[in-house]
Amino acid sequence: MREAYHDQLGQLADQLADMCGMVGDAMERATTALLESDLALAEQVIGDDAKVDDVRASIEEQSYALLALQAPVATDLRTVLAVIHAAESVERMGDLALHVAKAARRRHPQSVLGDDVKPYFAEMGRIAVELARETTEVIRTQDVARARLIEDADDAMDDLHRHLFTVIMDKDWQHGVASAVDTTLLGRFYERFADHAVSVAKRTVFVVTGRMPGYGDDADL
Amino acid sequence: MREAYHDQLGQLADQLADMCGMVGDAMERATTALLESDLALAEQVIGDDAKVDDVRASIEEQSYALLALQAPVATDLRTVLAVIHAAESVERMGDLALHVAKAARRRHPQSVLGDDVKPYFAEMGRIAVELARETTEVIRTQDVARARLIEDADDAMDDLHRHLFTVIMDKDWQHGVASAVDTTLLGRFYERFADHAVSVAKRTVFVVTGRMPGYGDDADL
Repeated sequence: MREAYHDQLGQLADQLADMCGMVGDAMERATTALLESDLALAEQVIGDDAKVDDVRASIEEQSYALLALQAPVATDLRTVLAVIHAAESVERMGDLALHVAKAARRRHPQSVLGDDVKPYFAEMGRIAVELARETTEVIRTQDVARARLIEDADDAMDDLHRHLFTVIMDKDWQHGVASAVDTTLLGRFYERFADHAVSVAKRTVFVVTGRMPGYGDDADL
Repeated sequence: MREAYHDQLGQLADQLADMCGMVGDAMERATTALLESDLALAEQVIGDDAKVDDVRASIEEQSYALLALQAPVATDLRTVLAVIHAAESVERMGDLALHVAKAARRRHPQSVLGDDVKPYFAEMGRIAVELARETTEVIRTQDVARARLIEDADDAMDDLHRHLFTVIMDKDWQHGVASAVDTTLLGRFYERFADHAVSVAKRTVFVVTGRMPGYGDDADL
């Protein structure tokens, strides 16, 4: 009985890790769509988001069934609750990749971004995808040391995000107000994506160690 | 035993409702601070946010204890899980009120907003506070019909938010890029605040009816 239960718990974690891999791929494609004004790729991300939502609904349903049927305690209980929370965060990461893809589609065939800010988004995209993949590994391996590295990558994201604002706000900004608005929101989508990855990693640390690292507010804009 | 358990569950819901009331008050004060460049009020909101975080941590701890000690099933299980989810959403609403207050503080003694967009924020603030208060009542009363009204108020918020963008993007925008960036982010904070209120209301419907209303994506920016 407990054996079957641990199998189910392991399968849940695998599905969560798969889901986290999916949103990492989505953000990678959305970033390419954004930087290269690739409409087909944007459409692909937009079409695929429902799959992420389905996985999340399935994970939540299975978690509820586990709680109801097995009534786990201690670490097992914490694990199931962490999975429920994490699935919510990862779904949200998928929504943020979706927002990036929709921005790329909305301005197509024009580029949403001015050439001077594209390098920021190339780098924020790289970090976002890396964070999603590291988080996937943290879920699979429950490696606490690795989870802590994720916070460093998030700091790099916050630095880029802050710096992006100084570029938009600079008197030499050439792209007008509409582009400033798009660039501002896109910057926030990447920053929030990273925050959610950190939140999932922290929940994993909580499961392993029994202690929750400090709740993080998102970067102070 | 089950009696004591239902008392505990009722107390949890009361704490959640109180927390929701707190973030409604925070958003009300943050909006006044924003519209009237009131630094003292902004500081008060910023200082009070830790109290919201404390209530959330306490609710989560008590919920975990309930699950571990009582192993509830069926509606009772759904209720505890809804409380855990809702506490996360309400904490996030508090963070968004905090962001509004910090924006007001950052530009003080100047106003963050141009006079032409202030009416939008007065109205978005009014709806946000109304949503928080209605959600508080939904938690207390578990009134499903009332929860559905919350979605109407959220539609009004989305309309205002969309309209705000047409104002910022208009060629007659007079306030420059920096103000457009601030106004864009502030608009998003109000819109997300409303989305979280809707999410809490939907979870409450789920507890009462056993059916989850459709998962909402946030407004397509």
